[in-house]
Amino acid sequence: MSVSAATRQKSGITLSLARLAVSYVNPSASASTVNASASTFPASLHPDVVTLTKQCMLDTLAVTIAANGDPLVDILQDDLVEQGGSATASVWGSKLRLPALSAALLNGTKSHALDYDDVNFAILGHPSVACLPPMYALAETRPHVVTWDKFVRGFVASYEIMCRLGMLLEPDHYDGRGFHATGTLGALGAAAGSAAALGLGEVETAHAIGNAAAQAGGLKGLFGTHCKPLHAGRAAYNGLSAARLAERGFQSRVDAIECDQGFASAHSSDFHPDRCLATPNNDLGLHLRDNLFKYHASCYLTHAPIESALKCRSQLGYTPLVGPSAKPIGVDEIAKIKLVIDETTSRVCNIPKPTTGLEAKFSLRLTVAAALRGVDTSRLDVWTSSLCEDPALIALRDKVEIDFRKGWDPAGSKAEVEVELTDGRVAQAAHDSSKAAENLEEQWARLEAKATGLVQPVLGEDKAAKLVEMVKGLGTKYEVADLKTVWE
Amino acid sequence: MSVSAATRQKSGITLSLARLAVSYVNPSASASTVNASASTFPASLHPDVVTLTKQCMLDTLAVTIAANGDPLVDILQDDLVEQGGSATASVWGSKLRLPALSAALLNGTKSHALDYDDVNFAILGHPSVACLPPMYALAETRPHVVTWDKFVRGFVASYEIMCRLGMLLEPDHYDGRGFHATGTLGALGAAAGSAAALGLGEVETAHAIGNAAAQAGGLKGLFGTHCKPLHAGRAAYNGLSAARLAERGFQSRVDAIECDQGFASAHSSDFHPDRCLATPNNDLGLHLRDNLFKYHASCYLTHAPIESALKCRSQLGYTPLVGPSAKPIGVDEIAKIKLVIDETTSRVCNIPKPTTGLEAKFSLRLTVAAALRGVDTSRLDVWTSSLCEDPALIALRDKVEIDFRKGWDPAGSKAEVEVELTDGRVAQAAHDSSKAAENLEEQWARLEAKATGLVQPVLGEDKAAKLVEMVKGLGTKYEVADLKTVWE
Repeated sequence: MSVSAATRQKSGITLSLARLAVSYVNPSASASTVNASASTFPASLHPDVVTLTKQCMLDTLAVTIAANGDPLVDILQDDLVEQGGSATASVWGSKLRLPALSAALLNGTKSHALDYDDVNFAILGHPSVACLPPMYALAETRPHVVTWDKFVRGFVASYEIMCRLGMLLEPDHYDGRGFHATGTLGALGAAAGSAAALGLGEVETAHAIGNAAAQAGGLKGLFGTHCKPLHAGRAAYNGLSAARLAERGFQSRVDAIECDQGFASAHSSDFHPDRCLATPNNDLGLHLRDNLFKYHASCYLTHAPIESALKCRSQLGYTPLVGPSAKPIGVDEIAKIKLVIDETTSRVCNIPKPTTGLEAKFSLRLTVAAALRGVDTSRLDVWTSSLCEDPALIALRDKVEIDFRKGWDPAGSKAEVEVELTDGRVAQAAHDSSKAAENLEEQWARLEAKATGLVQPVLGEDKAAKLVEMVKGLGTKYEVADLKTVWE
Repeated sequence: MSVSAATRQKSGITLSLARLAVSYVNPSASASTVNASASTFPASLHPDVVTLTKQCMLDTLAVTIAANGDPLVDILQDDLVEQGGSATASVWGSKLRLPALSAALLNGTKSHALDYDDVNFAILGHPSVACLPPMYALAETRPHVVTWDKFVRGFVASYEIMCRLGMLLEPDHYDGRGFHATGTLGALGAAAGSAAALGLGEVETAHAIGNAAAQAGGLKGLFGTHCKPLHAGRAAYNGLSAARLAERGFQSRVDAIECDQGFASAHSSDFHPDRCLATPNNDLGLHLRDNLFKYHASCYLTHAPIESALKCRSQLGYTPLVGPSAKPIGVDEIAKIKLVIDETTSRVCNIPKPTTGLEAKFSLRLTVAAALRGVDTSRLDVWTSSLCEDPALIALRDKVEIDFRKGWDPAGSKAEVEVELTDGRVAQAAHDSSKAAENLEEQWARLEAKATGLVQPVLGEDKAAKLVEMVKGLGTKYEVADLKTVWE
């Protein structure tokens, strides 16, 4: 598995990624020198790229606004307010303004606080919470440089570089060594995109990546604690800081990823330049096209089990899920629950007996039990310690047997659930949560419903609707800097 | 080499280290529960502990003040000034005041900018640049909490936890995976000491360590770039931030180091709880007693080669080193130069053909050549690109043959130099740079001379003398917060 230093060093991966980042933002400047995949990025933006960017924004802003008042957010906010500084960048969902770096840190942390934000399997992590806050702070503090067009391109550059780093260093980075890629790769991606959006050249952008490599951190062992969202905030902060410093002349190395004792060798035994530089196999040629939104408020790797359990529930006639006629499955009705899933999930979301709402989101057994029982897993307010203490759910949870299969589905996105009732009936269902929505209009509808459900209880009906309208009208009716009028 | 998750998890190392940190600051509170090594830390401070703290402070302040105007420092400073904020903590050597976290970041980076600061072999890195800035910012912003007594104890706690983490995770952390321990372990040590100095209990201090583990970074591959000092600054910043957040209730895990996919397994295949918890074998029972100051302005692992070369030079009659009667060794006089050193140094300071002053400090060949030639390696202003371009030095540099020996001296602190002249004479000498000074009074004299030489060109003779006087008078005549009167 391990890669020789010479092989890494020949790859020139940092500069290739920097060149790619610049080419997304300024296609004409780099078209002649950049590799094939980058030179195909068009000078005029494909409408789906703009749509996907807006969808990521709406979803990220909604899950952030819904985190208003979360204790971990308040703690970090209080600490940043005590530091003070130039009130130039907005905190999403708050009247508070902070310096650009503080805002990136707080928005990144806050947007990941509920763990309800988007996912990409190329990184086995969360792209928008690392990539959007720096671009947003730049659009507010450098509006003449980071226009809407540059915002979209810079976001794409961040997103793509982050995911390409995943292709380079996974699975060992996340699965083996246990780094939280949202924090580590997020910082490098955010740095590359921020640098490109600021108009830096290829070499300075490579230095920005290197400056981020010097600071990147994040551990999977800290899932289920306040530190998981902090990883996202630090990725946003470190990426923006790394790019700002590179702009001022702060130098790292142009081969910080692949150099001897560089980022790659310290953080993974995997190293796959071909996979990293290959164009993603979809109609846009972008990892962004494979972005996945969450419709259950728990760890993404519990979604296929939840969807499978819901299908079983439906087969057994226990519908609808919510409303006055909803009927919960009785504990005594169920003889056996079996979940088949890849072993990789056992190290991510297998807390056997969760006691807090946060822990519950990382419990395969409890999430399957809750879905079967009829709990609405899309709601934020069900994930509480009461949920963990519900005797019926505990009984169901303890009936879930997990068959962890090694090498079955390394991404961990597939699940099969079999439910055997005491009356002899059996239901079976499977789901794969790694497939992005094909129809972006349908995705809009689902995301608008999710965003409205999240924002309405915090800001009210009018502002929730206004947020949706404004995000959809970015670049035509509205600028990024206008959005804060919704919450300020 | 690799350690099973079960073995790590049984160790309880995070909480043990947190307990130890608290016991240094508040011996009575923890004496009954803490392990043997900690309960021996006395309620009244040993005078040598106070002396060593002051020596670390004088040396760190001097190398920081001498870095005034360094481009990498100015870049970072400009970026922090743009962020602005509450002007409560001083930047060493500057009239500028910044918020506590920004000051810790800048002071940590600035103090390591010249790579002339102190060293400890337990971490294979630089303790004071990570541990002093947070304590200093706390003493300025919380003077009633972090009094001089607490400052010393908090510094000791930071220093000891950082070094004990080195005992836990080295050599693989630094030598194998290539992490820059100053940045990584420094953040955790600084967090532990800061939390203890703030009066947090054992559990909160463990959370502070965990909060730092979530953010710690630093790569050896970035040595010789602006990012190496940035690692020190980030360690100081992350450690202080982690403790401030823990004080406000931000939670990580109390087993963040040893837990599955925690800090230890992600960052090293070594794991040695016994070595980590053992009392250091010296008269104070503290790693601080083994602190090493630098008297050559280059990478510490070049010091034994330089000292050996100087001894050879002296044996051959080429003394004194400086002054009007100094005689340089002629290039044609030397037939052969042989350096014996452990292979570990080949990955730290073996830039074969340096072209900048910074690279020169990480070149075994050039530093040996310079010392032999008669260059005063203690001076800052000799480490320039001109030094790298000097034809005589290049010729001498290329005569240096290095015999890298594997497992000969894993710390890399020993060197043997043999110089063969064309006239047939041969000189041989050896040096071990891992031994701390036995006599602290002699160390004061050497450090005062070094500090005066560094500070005088920047602040003038009077202020240089005042700095020495004030640091020596801390706790009796002066408070930490008074020191800034020297440079403001």
